[in-house]
Amino acid sequence: MDGRNKKFILELQKKPKVRRESGLYTVDGPKMAGELDPGDVENVYVTKSFLASQHFKECEELLRSVRYELVQDSEMKQMSDTVTPQGILVVARQKRVRGIRAMAEGVKDPLFLILETIQDPGNLGTIFRTAEAAGVTGIIMNNETVDAWSPKVVRSTMGAVLRMPFTAVDDLNEAVTKLASGAFTEGNKVNIYAAHLDGAVDYAAADLKGASAIMIGNESRGLSDELSGRADKKILIPMCGRTESLNAAVAAAVICFEAARQRRIN
Amino acid sequence: MDGRNKKFILELQKKPKVRRESGLYTVDGPKMAGELDPGDVENVYVTKSFLASQHFKECEELLRSVRYELVQDSEMKQMSDTVTPQGILVVARQKRVRGIRAMAEGVKDPLFLILETIQDPGNLGTIFRTAEAAGVTGIIMNNETVDAWSPKVVRSTMGAVLRMPFTAVDDLNEAVTKLASGAFTEGNKVNIYAAHLDGAVDYAAADLKGASAIMIGNESRGLSDELSGRADKKILIPMCGRTESLNAAVAAAVICFEAARQRRIN
Repeated sequence: MDGRNKKFILELQKKPKVRRESGLYTVDGPKMAGELDPGDVENVYVTKSFLASQHFKECEELLRSVRYELVQDSEMKQMSDTVTPQGILVVARQKRVRGIRAMAEGVKDPLFLILETIQDPGNLGTIFRTAEAAGVTGIIMNNETVDAWSPKVVRSTMGAVLRMPFTAVDDLNEAVTKLASGAFTEGNKVNIYAAHLDGAVDYAAADLKGASAIMIGNESRGLSDELSGRADKKILIPMCGRTESLNAAVAAAVICFEAARQRRIN
Repeated sequence: MDGRNKKFILELQKKPKVRRESGLYTVDGPKMAGELDPGDVENVYVTKSFLASQHFKECEELLRSVRYELVQDSEMKQMSDTVTPQGILVVARQKRVRGIRAMAEGVKDPLFLILETIQDPGNLGTIFRTAEAAGVTGIIMNNETVDAWSPKVVRSTMGAVLRMPFTAVDDLNEAVTKLASGAFTEGNKVNIYAAHLDGAVDYAAADLKGASAIMIGNESRGLSDELSGRADKKILIPMCGRTESLNAAVAAAVICFEAARQRRIN
């Protein structure tokens, strides 16, 4: 492969701007590569040793349906942002982001997760994975949240980035106001809950069965006053001991699974 | 400071064996240093620039009550396992681990968290932080679980490693059997729940109000058959979508906070 490609692929992994402008991203490793829609695949690079390995089977179907390029182990090391590349690297087109209205279409009581300025890629990935499992309808985040197509996020979603509807918006305050009014849900108003250390309502006492949105803020600063001011209720996860706060992904998990519990059991 | 010390301090950060044999560990950064009991502090190394910084206040009290050694910024970089050391590094004595009986003493319906072979330091740290917040009585883990005194775990507990009672045991199977029988709780039998993908009981339908223990397994393999075979019930977190499993720290959080909810609300 030529030098220009290699440089582009590295930039695709390192620079959000390059991903945004190209609409592409990378997938490293057979397991997640095997989950890609062949129609979204742009380029596939594999090493000989990978083709000879057992892991080949995890993405055999994909490799049968698209063309791939053989590269040397040393080239793969140069192309991949991981310390120990797994022998297959895919350049794929980002899933087209559907708008908030499209996310909620046909869902009776949607459950939205609103993320404000989440910075840690591992946290965002875990939130995607957890949200899918908890039955969240869609994730809405601001542009200051870490890019969901970054290699670290993609990896830690364990595939959920391909399945979980999400969108990043320029003005999260405006989006939340419109969401609350029912503008995205055919007039069905959405209850907005802010996860907040000063919350007055126990999250488990909040009614999360109807159309709801749960807002989770930045890892160290929490939600901005402006955004949490738009909530119908500030909810609190009561804490024992001297912990000051929960990890953002843990807080999201606890509240989303409480919503799932209420929707399943109550 | 002399070369031998520097080498020892680096080894203390890198090698579980050195920590185990010396009974020491390291704390990096002012916030957590400020939470240390001065009686547990062995050595304190600070840089001049740290003493002149605002962060000094976060551990001012400690620095007033113990002797500290001034080191150069370059020395601090060599001593610390973090990329950007915060200017204070403490060698402290590990909190004496209390046995399981001592953990439960005086607690009416203890809630134990049992960890089998958790490998990721960030996960273990998050579990400590979450467990403290959820009101867990004590954490019992096997020796194959990552060392709780490793710098990465200590950091990600956000101080909970100093406050949360925990113990690592040679034989977790035996410990669980004794726990179930009430041997550690003055005859009060402890219900043992295994978080399991093949669980038959919805975790939210399990009674977590009485004396209970929740068992969480390794990040990729889950619980061993031998250990989960000792559970009274295998419990399941029902999942939507195509997620295969939850992150171990997320699974622990969801179940522990359900226990907290039941104990608070029901």
